[in-house]
Amino acid sequence: MPLGEFELIERYFRRPADAMCRQRGDVPLGIGDDAALLAPPAGQQLVAALDTLVEGRHFPAGSPPRSIGHRALAVNLSDLAAMGADPAWFLLAMTLPAADEVFLEEFVRGLLQLAAEHGVALVGGDTTAGPLAVSVQALGFVAPGEALQRAGARAGDLLYVSGTPGDAAAGLRLAMGEAAAPALDESQRRWLLDRFHFPAPRVALGRELRGIASACIDVSDGLADDAGKLAAASGSAVVLELERLPLSAALLAQAGTAGATHLALTGGDDYELCFTVPPARAGALAARLANVKCTATRIGRIEAGSGIMLLDHGAPTAQSFTGFDHFRSR
Amino acid sequence: MPLGEFELIERYFRRPADAMCRQRGDVPLGIGDDAALLAPPAGQQLVAALDTLVEGRHFPAGSPPRSIGHRALAVNLSDLAAMGADPAWFLLAMTLPAADEVFLEEFVRGLLQLAAEHGVALVGGDTTAGPLAVSVQALGFVAPGEALQRAGARAGDLLYVSGTPGDAAAGLRLAMGEAAAPALDESQRRWLLDRFHFPAPRVALGRELRGIASACIDVSDGLADDAGKLAAASGSAVVLELERLPLSAALLAQAGTAGATHLALTGGDDYELCFTVPPARAGALAARLANVKCTATRIGRIEAGSGIMLLDHGAPTAQSFTGFDHFRSR
Repeated sequence: MPLGEFELIERYFRRPADAMCRQRGDVPLGIGDDAALLAPPAGQQLVAALDTLVEGRHFPAGSPPRSIGHRALAVNLSDLAAMGADPAWFLLAMTLPAADEVFLEEFVRGLLQLAAEHGVALVGGDTTAGPLAVSVQALGFVAPGEALQRAGARAGDLLYVSGTPGDAAAGLRLAMGEAAAPALDESQRRWLLDRFHFPAPRVALGRELRGIASACIDVSDGLADDAGKLAAASGSAVVLELERLPLSAALLAQAGTAGATHLALTGGDDYELCFTVPPARAGALAARLANVKCTATRIGRIEAGSGIMLLDHGAPTAQSFTGFDHFRSR
Repeated sequence: MPLGEFELIERYFRRPADAMCRQRGDVPLGIGDDAALLAPPAGQQLVAALDTLVEGRHFPAGSPPRSIGHRALAVNLSDLAAMGADPAWFLLAMTLPAADEVFLEEFVRGLLQLAAEHGVALVGGDTTAGPLAVSVQALGFVAPGEALQRAGARAGDLLYVSGTPGDAAAGLRLAMGEAAAPALDESQRRWLLDRFHFPAPRVALGRELRGIASACIDVSDGLADDAGKLAAASGSAVVLELERLPLSAALLAQAGTAGATHLALTGGDDYELCFTVPPARAGALAARLANVKCTATRIGRIEAGSGIMLLDHGAPTAQSFTGFDHFRSR
């Protein structure tokens, strides 16, 4: 028996959302009216991101519902992290083919577990019948002048990336059954799959980068592509030193050095932060990194000019790469 | 040749959005980074709504793209209007099967024309390939304590609706080719179609209702259903006096009195406001209505109890109605 929209919202979303809103204390009115009422902190700028995941495009059909819920929020928290923002609230719009209760229970579990980790509250939403797609709108705050942006990098700045890029793309290949990887042990296989299914938005790192990073972007479309966007927004060129790329043991076991390097440069869905730091602040960065769980590795530098140059132990390389674009094929 | 996401956003969205942001002066950073930076006015509450339109569900396949753009924003502005909010900014997430430039040009025209009418700025978004669906996230403001809510109506309050409900549902029937209506002249036909394709969110009315209305909801799922939701949220019953329903000449010409009444009660997509006013403020309401272009008609009252009662010239009627629910059939 299909659930009506109202019962569906009540059963799966409203009660946990109400509890999260009470806990935050800055949601005068959450789910259940025409719109949410929110009390922004005085003197802060609002940071707003809206990203959609579509089945068959951003995740394979048949993905674990818990992963879909997690990723729908994670990609938006990652956008806020890239701005150095403190996330506060989110709204959820989803279309789903049927009110499948097993799906919903797991979806909500993935969504709300990540929300609880970051102390963000679900304050509104909309469910409708249709092909499976999930839009999340995330709202956060940052003090005026403190937001990280893509523009701001200068020639001489050092380029960093968090975590181990390429893992999510390798995990997606495993999930799609596209990668035969006999060299992977079970824990490596699980690591790569989890990096695709349950990416960790680098919110804590983004906060620590306030006042340190000169520019920042999150890696959703591939490291080379996103580093290129950062450089373009900054009116500069970017140099990537391939031998510096932090490649995980699991990625190397799956793809070998050349394949791992290619995936690290071109694979989407990492949701790591790629950022630049003036050399004078490199020491301060190291101190800040002690406060967060993820690593950050220097992988290159910013130069005058435009475009991307790939260096392999100092020698220019012609390795081709294409970034991920949702209107081109993956 | 398919347009990449980046070029698509640049060509159709970014330039006009940038101009709107400059005009508002409260958008430190609009489209083009990981998230938007917004400067909320001091001392106001933030009002946030997120609604999605899916092809084949909220509008027929083959709808005019200009209407799809208009409605995607209108349904969200209507949610803000129902809260008595001043709309400020919106974000747009759309999935579309192909980067069809004719479609996009008209879609953007409908979207931005309505945005300009209400002085709201497009500050961010996301486009991706997929079945046609559009999510808009609208943000606005209201002073603490001034927001209209569904809860708040008391026994004895008078019930009003703006405009002429039922027209949009009649227009949808015309658009679907489902209504043979030889009695309609061309201007009536155009009126009904436009009421579906280009609903006018009652933002100005919502503002005037601050301090006047005791409760408010927008009519998206059918007047009876939405009045019932208002009453339920207020812990009260609602009495609808059928002979008071403001039925347009076009609706009457298409459907006759009984059919028009049924459509006014059950048709979705009106995006009128349904609200309650304590009798002592009825005079003040009349004065406020002089400031807005739309009409508002008293159609019933709030009573103690629960549920909805329909009266026809004072006599209870058993007219059946079902509201619109996106998980049931239309």
